[in-house]
Amino acid sequence: MRKPPREWTFLEGIRKIIERPHPHVRVGWGDDAFVFRNFPGYSVLCQDMMVEDVHFKLQYSSAADLGHKALAVNLSDLAAMGARPHFVHVSIAIPQKINESWLDEFYHSMTNLADLTGCQVVGGDLTSSPDRLVIDVSVHGSCQDEPLTIQEGQPGDLILSSGPLGLSKVGLAALQKGLTNFPRSQKAHLRPAARLDLFSQLREKQSRIKGLTDCSDGFFQDVQSFIDFQKNGFEVLACPELIHPEVLHFANLTNQDPYDIVLMGGEDFELLLLIAAADISHFPNWHVMGKIISDPKFIISENGNQRPLQSEDSWEHF
Amino acid sequence: MRKPPREWTFLEGIRKIIERPHPHVRVGWGDDAFVFRNFPGYSVLCQDMMVEDVHFKLQYSSAADLGHKALAVNLSDLAAMGARPHFVHVSIAIPQKINESWLDEFYHSMTNLADLTGCQVVGGDLTSSPDRLVIDVSVHGSCQDEPLTIQEGQPGDLILSSGPLGLSKVGLAALQKGLTNFPRSQKAHLRPAARLDLFSQLREKQSRIKGLTDCSDGFFQDVQSFIDFQKNGFEVLACPELIHPEVLHFANLTNQDPYDIVLMGGEDFELLLLIAAADISHFPNWHVMGKIISDPKFIISENGNQRPLQSEDSWEHF
Repeated sequence: MRKPPREWTFLEGIRKIIERPHPHVRVGWGDDAFVFRNFPGYSVLCQDMMVEDVHFKLQYSSAADLGHKALAVNLSDLAAMGARPHFVHVSIAIPQKINESWLDEFYHSMTNLADLTGCQVVGGDLTSSPDRLVIDVSVHGSCQDEPLTIQEGQPGDLILSSGPLGLSKVGLAALQKGLTNFPRSQKAHLRPAARLDLFSQLREKQSRIKGLTDCSDGFFQDVQSFIDFQKNGFEVLACPELIHPEVLHFANLTNQDPYDIVLMGGEDFELLLLIAAADISHFPNWHVMGKIISDPKFIISENGNQRPLQSEDSWEHF
Repeated sequence: MRKPPREWTFLEGIRKIIERPHPHVRVGWGDDAFVFRNFPGYSVLCQDMMVEDVHFKLQYSSAADLGHKALAVNLSDLAAMGARPHFVHVSIAIPQKINESWLDEFYHSMTNLADLTGCQVVGGDLTSSPDRLVIDVSVHGSCQDEPLTIQEGQPGDLILSSGPLGLSKVGLAALQKGLTNFPRSQKAHLRPAARLDLFSQLREKQSRIKGLTDCSDGFFQDVQSFIDFQKNGFEVLACPELIHPEVLHFANLTNQDPYDIVLMGGEDFELLLLIAAADISHFPNWHVMGKIISDPKFIISENGNQRPLQSEDSWEHF
């Protein structure tokens, strides 16, 4: 993150916020690139961009929200590989409306999440933008054992979620409509938690894991990574535990099927796990979303009845 | 670079352009993150963002120019550490005016440069943008030996450049003014060459290298990495070889001191080398820019006369 002299005082401010000692760092801040000694095992890289008015609006996302979320969405990708994060680069295109105290808050929040998850912000790029804020974060992590990858499941296999889905979508709608009684949903949208806390559990049980991904685009989309929809399909096993009370409340308020929100909402950043049905007892705290079926359709089973996803018809395929 | 199903056909097109077999890759395209076996030595990371109307204009930068340059500016940072590049992630925020054939050309050009420099494009992010194109590239590389870093030089030390400076600035001006007789300058601006070709030479002579960086912000700024201007300064040793004929021609045309262009122009992406004066004979093909002096000023010596940099006064310090 070397910059021309006139930006140096400003950059020194950022440096004070983010810099931490680290035994693997050989060349840190202030040179042409960042250099470190490798960690045991594999290296894992991911990169994710957020654009103002596409991914967020400054009216309801604070600097601290965005500093947290821009990192969290990447940490979620590492969690979904069974990897641990080490080093973060962040590039920001900064419009005039963003001032130094905004950036201070942004870096403090990102650094706070980095501290909590065992990684650190080490570099990136700062540039001006004619109008909109753009944030692009890359994270370098490692996994000592084999990575936990996306794999194709077979009929009978189960797909589990590490937590409730649909909250982020409700949170966004609540922010847009100015509804205040959806605190858990708003937090899910503004400050999602990457499920790195599940690392040890996943590694202990890795022999029973057939596939792993994170739920970022919405369950209906993400589940397609695990299923060849040319020949197989998915049956959602409807059950009250899948519907968070705030999702139920919002669905009632807006006259929607709550499963439409659960299955079509994105950005929940829970992990999705593919396992053989026989292994279900090994994952007691996970939500069973349903099972892969040998019929190429997506259905919801509830109290012995089957129905399609209501909003699937409106889904734009390609 | 996993994406929702409706983008899959489009992403498959990009995948066909960029994907190459690689013995270190464990999890490539299509999962939550990219996983690879480490290379010997240190890992080296850099990341650089380019914003439309700040760093480039689509009127004179083609898709192929931008695909090349967005990677080259990062490769230059790796060259300046004595590192070799391996894996490239590219995030792009794409406005409506950009179509698929533009992106095809962009990825083809970036892949072409990656092939030439021994690395490959392996992932990133694609998102829409309300108006402007934003490109953010990160590169993972490695160096088997110790990295070649920026260090503080002492009075008497020399600073060399791997090639002529100022061409990129002339090229940009020529593009803006519609002047056609500056082909080398326009190429320097639109398709800069990262000096990875100097890797072997630098590694052979590394015991004689006191410091290394790349010239990206302009010599006058970049040289300050090597010099503590509180106590020392720099004397440019003016000599015809420092002025490329196109720079001289442009300086005459616009009634400027050519050294103003050479020393204040940015984005040349040549390497700057700090050495002891006694080692000069070991670097015969490098341009001697001048020497560090024990007086905290920046001067140009020519035919026994000394003068300041004309445009230094107008330089905004902080």
